[in-house]
Amino acid sequence: MRLQIVGLGPGRDEVLSFQARAALSQAEVIVGYKTYLDQVGFLLEGKRIVSSAMTQELDRAGTALDLALAGDRVVVISGGDPGIYAMAGVVFELARARAIPLGSGPEQLQIEVIPGVPALAAAAAILGAPLTHDFACISLSDRLTPWDVITKRLSLTAQADLVIVLYNPKSRGRHWQFGQACQIVAQTRPPDTPMGLVTNAMRDEGEKVVLTTLGQAASTDVDMHTIVIIGNSQTFVYGGRMVTPRGYVNKYGGK
Amino acid sequence: MRLQIVGLGPGRDEVLSFQARAALSQAEVIVGYKTYLDQVGFLLEGKRIVSSAMTQELDRAGTALDLALAGDRVVVISGGDPGIYAMAGVVFELARARAIPLGSGPEQLQIEVIPGVPALAAAAAILGAPLTHDFACISLSDRLTPWDVITKRLSLTAQADLVIVLYNPKSRGRHWQFGQACQIVAQTRPPDTPMGLVTNAMRDEGEKVVLTTLGQAASTDVDMHTIVIIGNSQTFVYGGRMVTPRGYVNKYGGK
Repeated sequence: MRLQIVGLGPGRDEVLSFQARAALSQAEVIVGYKTYLDQVGFLLEGKRIVSSAMTQELDRAGTALDLALAGDRVVVISGGDPGIYAMAGVVFELARARAIPLGSGPEQLQIEVIPGVPALAAAAAILGAPLTHDFACISLSDRLTPWDVITKRLSLTAQADLVIVLYNPKSRGRHWQFGQACQIVAQTRPPDTPMGLVTNAMRDEGEKVVLTTLGQAASTDVDMHTIVIIGNSQTFVYGGRMVTPRGYVNKYGGK
Repeated sequence: MRLQIVGLGPGRDEVLSFQARAALSQAEVIVGYKTYLDQVGFLLEGKRIVSSAMTQELDRAGTALDLALAGDRVVVISGGDPGIYAMAGVVFELARARAIPLGSGPEQLQIEVIPGVPALAAAAAILGAPLTHDFACISLSDRLTPWDVITKRLSLTAQADLVIVLYNPKSRGRHWQFGQACQIVAQTRPPDTPMGLVTNAMRDEGEKVVLTTLGQAASTDVDMHTIVIIGNSQTFVYGGRMVTPRGYVNKYGGK
């Protein structure tokens, strides 16, 4: 029995890997959130499709496990990389809660994760090279994580001078978290710290790029498809691109 | 004038994106470290190839900029994603040091970064889903970053209960950093914290996976191609897979 969790990359067909495409073409059932199904509509012909709403991650994982245990060849699709704030975790969470035996044996379920280009890498590529040095990745969604845990993480990573990537800065019903996150980071970083915000990075529609500063960012329009990148003390903007250097030029010269 | 920095993904052909393949096929000159050139040897026919040693990042960037400014269509290749500890940063660093005008105008150089599946996503996929919640990514290479900056980052991210991804745990001439990093994290995390170590993740040869604990990890064999993932307080191992839950099952039940 086999279940694959496949990363589609950020959205445009051309970011899909050959491995992901092969998994989709061999699947009998494809389970996913509607937006991601639309993204690979050209690969779905002849498949059984199980579509669900954005917030139904647990239902989707349960359906996928049921079908895989019944012998279907099932693929769960995820935007970006399935292992970064996406479907891989919830499938394993639920497999454990149900005590489903995992492995490649005859009575076991083999769960395979096929990585994709994560949204953070797509956003960084558009901005320039803001993640070329150490970074932290923090979700501002307090649906499953208490806000005081999130604020502690923001504060400590800001002190650690890590570049900070924010996922889920805002959604329906969560409006104030992004502004507060900027304030927390601003306690240890100056207001002219470069900040890049990319919405719908490398998707077919709606891509929007804003290069601003920590002092100005809170008024920027963000949504649940925005990746926010806050520079560290070394991050600079040159020629309209945001870059965190590793320090080659400082150490060896720039001839 | 145009320069593309292209991510090849972790190594196996099938992780290459369609976009990366297209960029390679349209290039006149391809600049890269020999191992990565070998990885895409089947795409190099008829191209001018500029190969260089592992540590010559600045030379490689300089050559690529020279050729692009001379009018060649140049691609710089990077393993994994070019924006995560890879070539994108150094190209922009050097462009700034040389005051090369960037943009899409006639006298400007257009630098495009094409993302790839990063090694951290490939390693996580092999292990299970260890990065489904907030994480930090820290390089243990003190060639360009002082060791006291690295240890401060390790200590603060450990306190922040972030999953920690380590790049470059060891190399020729750097032997003790990995053990010391484990000790620093162990000041705030218990010895039974799950730890995954993946060497040559999804490469054609030499893939090696070790699932261990923070208390045992320091004796594990690592090298410069190993990605190390240290779990947070919620990370569990089930069925041989390492998983950091977002908490769906805890909140909504696991039926």
